[in-house]
Amino acid sequence: MSLSARNQLKGKVVGLKKGVITAEVVVEIAGGNKVTSIVSLDSVEELGIKEGAEVTAIVKSTDVMILA
Amino acid sequence: MSLSARNQLKGKVVGLKKGVITAEVVVEIAGGNKVTSIVSLDSVEELGIKEGAEVTAIVKSTDVMILA
Amino acid sequence: MSLSARNQLKGKVVGLKKGVITAEVVVEIAGGNKVTSIVSLDSVEELGIKEGAEVTAIVKSTDVMILA
Amino acid sequence: MSLSARNQLKGKVVGLKKGVITAEVVVEIAGGNKVTSIVSLDSVEELGIKEGAEVTAIVKSTDVMILA
Amino acid sequence: MSLSARNQLKGKVVGLKKGVITAEVVVEIAGGNKVTSIVSLDSVEELGIKEGAEVTAIVKSTDVMILA
Amino acid sequence: MSLSARNQLKGKVVGLKKGVITAEVVVEIAGGNKVTSIVSLDSVEELGIKEGAEVTAIVKSTDVMILA
Repeated sequence: MSLSARNQLKGKVVGLKKGVITAEVVVEIAGGNKVTSIVSLDSVEELGIKEGAEVTAIVKSTDVMILA
Repeated sequence: MSLSARNQLKGKVVGLKKGVITAEVVVEIAGGNKVTSIVSLDSVEELGIKEGAEVTAIVKSTDVMILA
Repeated sequence: MSLSARNQLKGKVVGLKKGVITAEVVVEIAGGNKVTSIVSLDSVEELGIKEGAEVTAIVKSTDVMILA
Repeated sequence: MSLSARNQLKGKVVGLKKGVITAEVVVEIAGGNKVTSIVSLDSVEELGIKEGAEVTAIVKSTDVMILA
Repeated sequence: MSLSARNQLKGKVVGLKKGVITAEVVVEIAGGNKVTSIVSLDSVEELGIKEGAEVTAIVKSTDVMILA
Repeated sequence: MSLSARNQLKGKVVGLKKGVITAEVVVEIAGGNKVTSIVSLDSVEELGIKEGAEVTAIVKSTDVMILA
């Protein structure tokens, strides 16, 4: 199965910080860029996200702005 | 001035398609990844976005999901 | 692999309308509720979304509001 | 008055967890699906959201993705 | 009933443009600011949104960034 | 450089509350309206956001709903 979200950036978890409701996951993608994600803490625990894990950062194209 | 959005990915416009209300901008970033953005057509015209232009794709971290 | 988005609602496509940049997909889920999605036209075409198809509507929990 | 958001799913609060800035509200809707929402803690307190309350989960259609 | 979204800005519709799937609504709020909204064309038609109408622009606080 | 986001509302920070992962920033804009933003705590610290600071609240038009 495939997801409609246009942006699927593969990388490795290089930072993980847990709050009460949310957690912050930093993913290093190709070319050295870092992508920061805030998801629910529940997701991080259910998916077993850990530093060093191979993950994909997903962004719907209507959530991307352009600075030009 | 700086923007709070954590994700600011520099690249070059490699695709541009205009609709009636929205437009689709494809940005090639470091490492060869492509980021697709849907913004208002008004923005594309006011900012003068064109293929080949150097731009930055911006994403708020609460809009990034993780596939793990 | 699993996606961090908390809301994954299975259903069947009962409506599909295509624009220039975006498309509208209506999914009937369990209990008779209908969920409307606006995604890029490219996604609809690449995923081969058609009326009658079994799909899952996905929503990140930070995008859900409460009326109480 | 009516809200433009296409997705308005009626249900009952079956889970509530409070953080410092945000809170997580779980709503059981028709057909047994559960919808998880992360809203500001202020909202939860001002609206008096409690377990067992009848509420409506609201999602803008541009925030719905499709897995197909 | 009340909506959890923190930002509810009252104003008057001063611009309206219809596409195939989406429509753009411009609302002039207190202090002369204009707020631009892109919603589904279906919403604009069902709600009977017209130039001159009194409406409220609604934004969830997780969708607001800060430039500082 | 300019940002594609249509809504750029200038104001002054009149409220600031810090959580573990996120922070809430309240901005008073022209006409006395208040706009509430939830951003990452990291952003608040890197941008040095403080009560009384002149900032701009930014919202992408696809994130604005209409109540009519």
